[in-house]
Amino acid sequence: MDLELKTKPEYLESLQWRYATKKFDSSKKLSEDDLNELLESIRLSASSYGLQPYEVLVITDEDIREKLKAAAWNQSQVAEASHLIVFANYAKITEEHVDAYMENIAETRNVSRGDLQGLEDMIKSTTLSRPQEDLQVWGSKQTYIALGNLLSAAANMRIDTCPMEGFDNAKFDEILNLKEKNLQSSVIIPVGYRSEDDSYQDLEKVRKSKSDLFHFV
Amino acid sequence: MDLELKTKPEYLESLQWRYATKKFDSSKKLSEDDLNELLESIRLSASSYGLQPYEVLVITDEDIREKLKAAAWNQSQVAEASHLIVFANYAKITEEHVDAYMENIAETRNVSRGDLQGLEDMIKSTTLSRPQEDLQVWGSKQTYIALGNLLSAAANMRIDTCPMEGFDNAKFDEILNLKEKNLQSSVIIPVGYRSEDDSYQDLEKVRKSKSDLFHFV
Repeated sequence: MDLELKTKPEYLESLQWRYATKKFDSSKKLSEDDLNELLESIRLSASSYGLQPYEVLVITDEDIREKLKAAAWNQSQVAEASHLIVFANYAKITEEHVDAYMENIAETRNVSRGDLQGLEDMIKSTTLSRPQEDLQVWGSKQTYIALGNLLSAAANMRIDTCPMEGFDNAKFDEILNLKEKNLQSSVIIPVGYRSEDDSYQDLEKVRKSKSDLFHFV
Repeated sequence: MDLELKTKPEYLESLQWRYATKKFDSSKKLSEDDLNELLESIRLSASSYGLQPYEVLVITDEDIREKLKAAAWNQSQVAEASHLIVFANYAKITEEHVDAYMENIAETRNVSRGDLQGLEDMIKSTTLSRPQEDLQVWGSKQTYIALGNLLSAAANMRIDTCPMEGFDNAKFDEILNLKEKNLQSSVIIPVGYRSEDDSYQDLEKVRKSKSDLFHFV
């Protein structure tokens, strides 16, 4: 094993450093490189079947951020952080989504669509027949894997985040025209740099003890 | 910013290295240290309100692993990987869960329960009143944040994983006696080391292009 890559203490140190940032320094913006790195951590995230049944909005427009803030109980992070990332899962999973994924596999791995027929049939039969509401929950869950990945990547780069479920999904969908794109907002994450004034950064992290959280069988 | 901690290329390299391992080398076991590191990455994961509405089973018992494998369409990873991690969300979120969390905050941060009354009321009013099924979905989503975090941490340590939704949840709950513990299986992850024979490790990773996945607003 490559010891240089086994950056163990640093990794957990990053997770300890992370906290749900309540107040961002609106004067500090992510560099283009850092933003691309964060987005790449989202893009490389695992998802069920690899289907990635979601899209991701990266929002900097100030007017829209103000409208979104009003639809998120006026939580300041929505407008003040450098960027607002909105995960939006497919409202409906269609045959076209699976076909596009198959095309992507065929091109990336240089195989024929025929070679993928078994996989295509399996994914279509297990997804398209399920009730739409189940698929929405399933799609939303996949965004949470990417969310976890994003939080880790950001912490590793000492970039602050605040994952938020506390917003009016219907209003977000309306402001961002998500319905017409067959999308629905799942979870949002302001990213940027903490304000020195945010006293939450000084609080001890509260987590279940190992014995409360883990059971060995 | 501490440059030593900004391990950017390595981080994305780890995500590239990761794949959904189809065949594990059953002779290779995680060291105690590595297992503890992985579990710590789960324990430090973010969750809504910080409530961590789930518990985590770490399963090595061979007989139980064989039973679970049968309840997961006989996918070999369930029995062959070094450890099987099962995330289980609360089936029902109770007042006692919130009280235990408040006690934990009070002890960890050395504040009185009275100081936390506002937070306690807010969490109780927004969780306990919601339909049980909604809370189960919500709890399950929180496990997916920890899942994303675990996948990243493992890849960073060059430990293989295979996140799996393809199992019979009811049978898992029965085999692991989860119902009587007010838990229900959410997602499972065999962790360990890939077999040299697993040809999936050589396949190109398939992901949406940046322009298909991201929209800048």
